[in-house]
Amino acid sequence: MSKIAVCPGSFDPVTLGHLDIIKRGASVFEKVYVCVLNNSSKQPLFSVEERLELLREVTQDLPNVEVDSFKGLLIDYAASKNAKVVLRGLRAVSDFEYEMQITAMNRKLNEDIETLFMMTNSQYSFLSSSIVKEAAKYKGNISDLVPAAVDRELKKKFTEL
Amino acid sequence: MSKIAVCPGSFDPVTLGHLDIIKRGASVFEKVYVCVLNNSSKQPLFSVEERLELLREVTQDLPNVEVDSFKGLLIDYAASKNAKVVLRGLRAVSDFEYEMQITAMNRKLNEDIETLFMMTNSQYSFLSSSIVKEAAKYKGNISDLVPAAVDRELKKKFTEL
Amino acid sequence: MSKIAVCPGSFDPVTLGHLDIIKRGASVFEKVYVCVLNNSSKQPLFSVEERLELLREVTQDLPNVEVDSFKGLLIDYAASKNAKVVLRGLRAVSDFEYEMQITAMNRKLNEDIETLFMMTNSQYSFLSSSIVKEAAKYKGNISDLVPAAVDRELKKKFTEL
Amino acid sequence: MSKIAVCPGSFDPVTLGHLDIIKRGASVFEKVYVCVLNNSSKQPLFSVEERLELLREVTQDLPNVEVDSFKGLLIDYAASKNAKVVLRGLRAVSDFEYEMQITAMNRKLNEDIETLFMMTNSQYSFLSSSIVKEAAKYKGNISDLVPAAVDRELKKKFTEL
Amino acid sequence: MSKIAVCPGSFDPVTLGHLDIIKRGASVFEKVYVCVLNNSSKQPLFSVEERLELLREVTQDLPNVEVDSFKGLLIDYAASKNAKVVLRGLRAVSDFEYEMQITAMNRKLNEDIETLFMMTNSQYSFLSSSIVKEAAKYKGNISDLVPAAVDRELKKKFTEL
Amino acid sequence: MSKIAVCPGSFDPVTLGHLDIIKRGASVFEKVYVCVLNNSSKQPLFSVEERLELLREVTQDLPNVEVDSFKGLLIDYAASKNAKVVLRGLRAVSDFEYEMQITAMNRKLNEDIETLFMMTNSQYSFLSSSIVKEAAKYKGNISDLVPAAVDRELKKKFTEL
Repeated sequence: MSKIAVCPGSFDPVTLGHLDIIKRGASVFEKVYVCVLNNSSKQPLFSVEERLELLREVTQDLPNVEVDSFKGLLIDYAASKNAKVVLRGLRAVSDFEYEMQITAMNRKLNEDIETLFMMTNSQYSFLSSSIVKEAAKYKGNISDLVPAAVDRELKKKFTEL
Repeated sequence: MSKIAVCPGSFDPVTLGHLDIIKRGASVFEKVYVCVLNNSSKQPLFSVEERLELLREVTQDLPNVEVDSFKGLLIDYAASKNAKVVLRGLRAVSDFEYEMQITAMNRKLNEDIETLFMMTNSQYSFLSSSIVKEAAKYKGNISDLVPAAVDRELKKKFTEL
Repeated sequence: MSKIAVCPGSFDPVTLGHLDIIKRGASVFEKVYVCVLNNSSKQPLFSVEERLELLREVTQDLPNVEVDSFKGLLIDYAASKNAKVVLRGLRAVSDFEYEMQITAMNRKLNEDIETLFMMTNSQYSFLSSSIVKEAAKYKGNISDLVPAAVDRELKKKFTEL
Repeated sequence: MSKIAVCPGSFDPVTLGHLDIIKRGASVFEKVYVCVLNNSSKQPLFSVEERLELLREVTQDLPNVEVDSFKGLLIDYAASKNAKVVLRGLRAVSDFEYEMQITAMNRKLNEDIETLFMMTNSQYSFLSSSIVKEAAKYKGNISDLVPAAVDRELKKKFTEL
Repeated sequence: MSKIAVCPGSFDPVTLGHLDIIKRGASVFEKVYVCVLNNSSKQPLFSVEERLELLREVTQDLPNVEVDSFKGLLIDYAASKNAKVVLRGLRAVSDFEYEMQITAMNRKLNEDIETLFMMTNSQYSFLSSSIVKEAAKYKGNISDLVPAAVDRELKKKFTEL
Repeated sequence: MSKIAVCPGSFDPVTLGHLDIIKRGASVFEKVYVCVLNNSSKQPLFSVEERLELLREVTQDLPNVEVDSFKGLLIDYAASKNAKVVLRGLRAVSDFEYEMQITAMNRKLNEDIETLFMMTNSQYSFLSSSIVKEAAKYKGNISDLVPAAVDRELKKKFTEL
């Protein structure tokens, strides 16, 4: 039986939608590694180190959650942690197609690692990091969409810029 | 942590797509209850008792799988088995919408029970019980889409009719 | 400019998702006719008269909403009320396809009548009359998904049955 | 190379959307069999014989189109005509899912028969036999959505009823 | 009741699909502000000023339409114009997901502003500014997809380049 | 009747999913031109010349397939080859929307050229060039997803880098 799960993402930055999945994952599995995947060629708003710090801050009261980062194949990371499960949140249809594609590829690459999906809580079903950044950039109030620490850091970022 | 999962369906009849999900679920959870839900008003091809027998036959070498049936709310069945997880296979988009609707309702009815989805193996991604029955009715060869026992019983059904 | 809108549906029974659309419609238009369309061949749970009564009860504090029923083409009903706008709630993708089909047909039949869609509040985005009835049938608690009057009548229905 | 195609459907009744696909198919293939599949348990509005007559009337000026009916598996019909191609029109997403399921099954049953899809002309992209029947039932003007012969017969049907 | 609507977009350039929505919006609302949103980091083909000029030219016979541009949150622009309604055209499924996401966010940011969707006329249902630019770049004839002024300016742009 | 088909794509690089469509197309049409479209502004991994070489290598035993490249409108290329048919593989829903958009535009530009779609074999239904490149970059084993020649060249590319 599988007791260890990996919850991967870019978390640029973590939203309350992500946090909801992490919390629920932490109640289903014995150990959850929240892993910032660092493969994208897109320019992030927050550096990997900043994203890790925010994730650590918002998951600090979840004792079986550990925050980490990785550059490479998700299945290699999962294997290195003895995790048999990858946990992903599912929002709407466009997500679904993309997630299916990634999942099918991961199964090809390592059949022993199983991807499990959780439906995003409907109050967050249309929430994404990019839409949060867009709203924050123009001073929209996003305090009930992201953890307080993220709200604070987004305000800083867009004051600096 | 959640060790017990319920895998519900109408299984009229069980296909290799269902069996793939059941097997993978049995490798992730300590105990899997495969549960024939008996709420539908649609006239089934196989009776609940026949469906249970077929499920028992095709899962007999999976020691941590138990086959059962239930009339009522899935969350009530799950609670009665101390299961915190409902496991569902996901195929294509139409599935996805329907599953999201059921899952959102189940979360409303009992927030402690978590629904987890597994992507159907791509070779079964467009397989359904109804399309199998349609093919069997007109003597199509479906031997690599259903377990041998189901192939045998479908042939009997459509000879009887 | 269009001041009168028709909000059609089968409302079997009205849910909080429907009511949310009706209220928001009543704040955009001067007059909203909530119209029970009575064309379906499906056997309803509530009679047209019962559905009208429930709609009247739950919209009684909305002075510019009037409840009505009709058998025939929606565009003929709209024209009879001098309504230039049909208002519909949109939930998920399956809705969307179906709504597009109906809307395209209505435009063919009468180009002067415009269909406007409102996105269902995300907390109701996977709610439907049929899933509510299924839950109520097996004594699920749906009190935060339907108006109190509907909760009461659903309990009566399923005790009678 | 494949010169013979089968264009299957229930055609209850044929619409201008169907006819557009048939005509375009007739310009791509040497011979097109338009085949009324007679497997459905749904009660049709037009009998198989009436549907064949309407199809013959509206395709009479297409010399390489032949109208036919069949009860059984589409791939068996195609093989009996030496057709290597099944031709289908695609409208919107719900179509797509269903067509993919049928096509995958047909490939399982006979890998030699290839299904090719044509995108429905956008002016007919939300047109279906059932929506046409619903409109005709309540005297909607559908004269630019169906061939004249179908318009005439729909009027007769709904006067008779 | 809401008499003022905002119709936002990037309009790079305006197509007949956009113009159809603008015209229909102008017949439903007393005043329509067509607003070029100027937030994107993508390099446009036409400058904001050029897009405004084209929009003014093609809407000059619509007296209750005013053309404008804005950098910031749509809800802030709407509030500044006393508009209670945002009007958007809906094409196909990918649109739908994206529009739902934006709309849910806008409702979070300001619940008083209601987004209403109109279905794009089916003859324009697969039309977009980017596909028009791609065709124009290689001298495709797009004269029935864009207003004459846009056709003229696209020809100029791609001759210059 | 149409005997010549064009099968366009970016093929950066060709996968077994593409090759499956090319082979099946070659069994339906007398001649198939596999055409590398060279319009994209995206930076490719393989140059047009490299992509052509790989396509030639993997199609060398298909006598009626010819490999080519083109910069411009697909319909102009098709016309230059006397091809009346464009052949495309269809995978999942996101594909579908995009393909419909391109196809509708191509029909506007030249109504004589017909686009036909083939459903991608379900074992390749979630395969794409970009996901293959991502896996290859981090040394994932993709030998059953691409032709051997492509596997070899991908290894070279990512060793060089």
